[in-house]
Amino acid sequence: MATIVVPPVTPSPAEDADALLKAFQGWGTDEQAVIGVLAHRDATQRKQIRLTYEENYNENLIQRLQSELSGDLERAMYHWVLDPVERQAVMVNTATKCIHEDYAVIVEIACTNSSSELLAVKRTYHVLYKCSLEEDVAARTTGNLRSLLLALVSTYRYDGDEVNDALAKSEAKILHETVTNGDTDHGELIRIVGTRSRAQLNATFSWFRDERGTSITKALQHGADPTGYSHVLRTALRCISDANKYFVKVLRNAMHKSGTNEDSLTRVIVLHAEKDLKGIKDAFQKRASVALEKAIGNDTSGDYKSFLMALLGSGI
Amino acid sequence: MATIVVPPVTPSPAEDADALLKAFQGWGTDEQAVIGVLAHRDATQRKQIRLTYEENYNENLIQRLQSELSGDLERAMYHWVLDPVERQAVMVNTATKCIHEDYAVIVEIACTNSSSELLAVKRTYHVLYKCSLEEDVAARTTGNLRSLLLALVSTYRYDGDEVNDALAKSEAKILHETVTNGDTDHGELIRIVGTRSRAQLNATFSWFRDERGTSITKALQHGADPTGYSHVLRTALRCISDANKYFVKVLRNAMHKSGTNEDSLTRVIVLHAEKDLKGIKDAFQKRASVALEKAIGNDTSGDYKSFLMALLGSGI
Repeated sequence: MATIVVPPVTPSPAEDADALLKAFQGWGTDEQAVIGVLAHRDATQRKQIRLTYEENYNENLIQRLQSELSGDLERAMYHWVLDPVERQAVMVNTATKCIHEDYAVIVEIACTNSSSELLAVKRTYHVLYKCSLEEDVAARTTGNLRSLLLALVSTYRYDGDEVNDALAKSEAKILHETVTNGDTDHGELIRIVGTRSRAQLNATFSWFRDERGTSITKALQHGADPTGYSHVLRTALRCISDANKYFVKVLRNAMHKSGTNEDSLTRVIVLHAEKDLKGIKDAFQKRASVALEKAIGNDTSGDYKSFLMALLGSGI
Repeated sequence: MATIVVPPVTPSPAEDADALLKAFQGWGTDEQAVIGVLAHRDATQRKQIRLTYEENYNENLIQRLQSELSGDLERAMYHWVLDPVERQAVMVNTATKCIHEDYAVIVEIACTNSSSELLAVKRTYHVLYKCSLEEDVAARTTGNLRSLLLALVSTYRYDGDEVNDALAKSEAKILHETVTNGDTDHGELIRIVGTRSRAQLNATFSWFRDERGTSITKALQHGADPTGYSHVLRTALRCISDANKYFVKVLRNAMHKSGTNEDSLTRVIVLHAEKDLKGIKDAFQKRASVALEKAIGNDTSGDYKSFLMALLGSGI
């Protein structure tokens, strides 16, 4: 469930566009007015506002927002104003060009969307970048990392609930042998994680836990990870087995006492605020014994904080 | 362009269903009457006939056809009566279970359909088999063969015409090094062939030819091929660079003097008769200096021959 709060009656797109223009004009930007409009409109409404703003003022709203805002608020607002599918295409494209810490974004988009949602992102990727997500991912990686990431982004997974128990048992054995033997040949593991349906994989992970007394993510050995492959594998296993729990972990790591990782914080909030952030909030409260709004409120400040709070559906 | 001939005015689905029932009744089946109806109806009309037949006579038309017909005609008619997308899903599923000579079917369906056409086949595969094409392909193969087949069936390729010439040149060099060095590490080759757009790949193949004086398919070394990987690679390169030329080769091999391969013959005719068989016919005539109808007419006989002739848009 989404967390954003859209008023039952909203101004017309022209009125919203006008309010934004007024917030930009004069000495300094009225960030609170910008947040007051855009954080409380759904994707269709934001699109209408973008179109109306461009038509009425002959200016691109996103570019104007980028020149008016700065820092974490600018980056968060830039992604928020995009259409949800376009936003994911932009984020996954940026991730393909980055160092391997950012591959988590690719995994999240590949593994927490349904097959048809992922397909929509890949279609928009074609339109925006005149190439496929697959070729960008494959061209910038090698070895096991490439095989796994490529399978994750390319497979049109079966989305049904049917589970083959015998298969789950035999594939749990293969996964166990691979992760405990420290085997470098991950071909079979990548095949299983990269192509089986979520329901089938969760049955396999369940067999693994029942037979081995530990989860597959815990059984994965920590060690040197020069290519980032192990991190990607761990992320994929977590996203597939329990996406909410995974995002709670990302949020908690982002608010670690050693400093706040605003990029991770923004990513989770912006990507999920109009989709399933309610479930992540509930899981966070349960795991951290503190409300997500409170945790984020303690770790952020100013207009950026206000914006995240608005997306979380809460006052400051 | 399609080759089948549909009369400008056709009987109603109920009349067609009735004509089929009459052809089934009595002593022996009237195969010519069955062909006279079904070879001259398009996919939408055949679907209506199937539905009407089932409704009116409480019997599955496909099953009845299978019990009434036999041999090559039965197999050809079974595939023909299916919806084009369903037909491809059925054929590619059969191929995943077969020995590696049949992997060509998987490659043809992956490489000669547009991205959206391939996606439609994969969607129907989900519905029919409650799993993904990707997991079936990956589970039954290993090594380079798996990597290549999996990339071919899973990548949602970019379908645009844009070409990056510098990239084509550099990737032509990678392909050349891999195929001429007899290198067993085909990771980069598989990445290129498995993920780049058709337009980009054809630019790359063109650079290859210009710089090396030979096509990449000719440069591929012939040798022991225990897994069928080399055959799959060669088929993919041919399907991507010139599908019509590739199908002409399949047809000519199917009518080799050592005997006719009816399965290959049926596959090409049935899969393409209502799509692009006209182009394949023209390419055949040009290459073999004989009309495809004439060649097939010399190599086949009886009702099977009549059926193929009807699909080719010609009398006997």
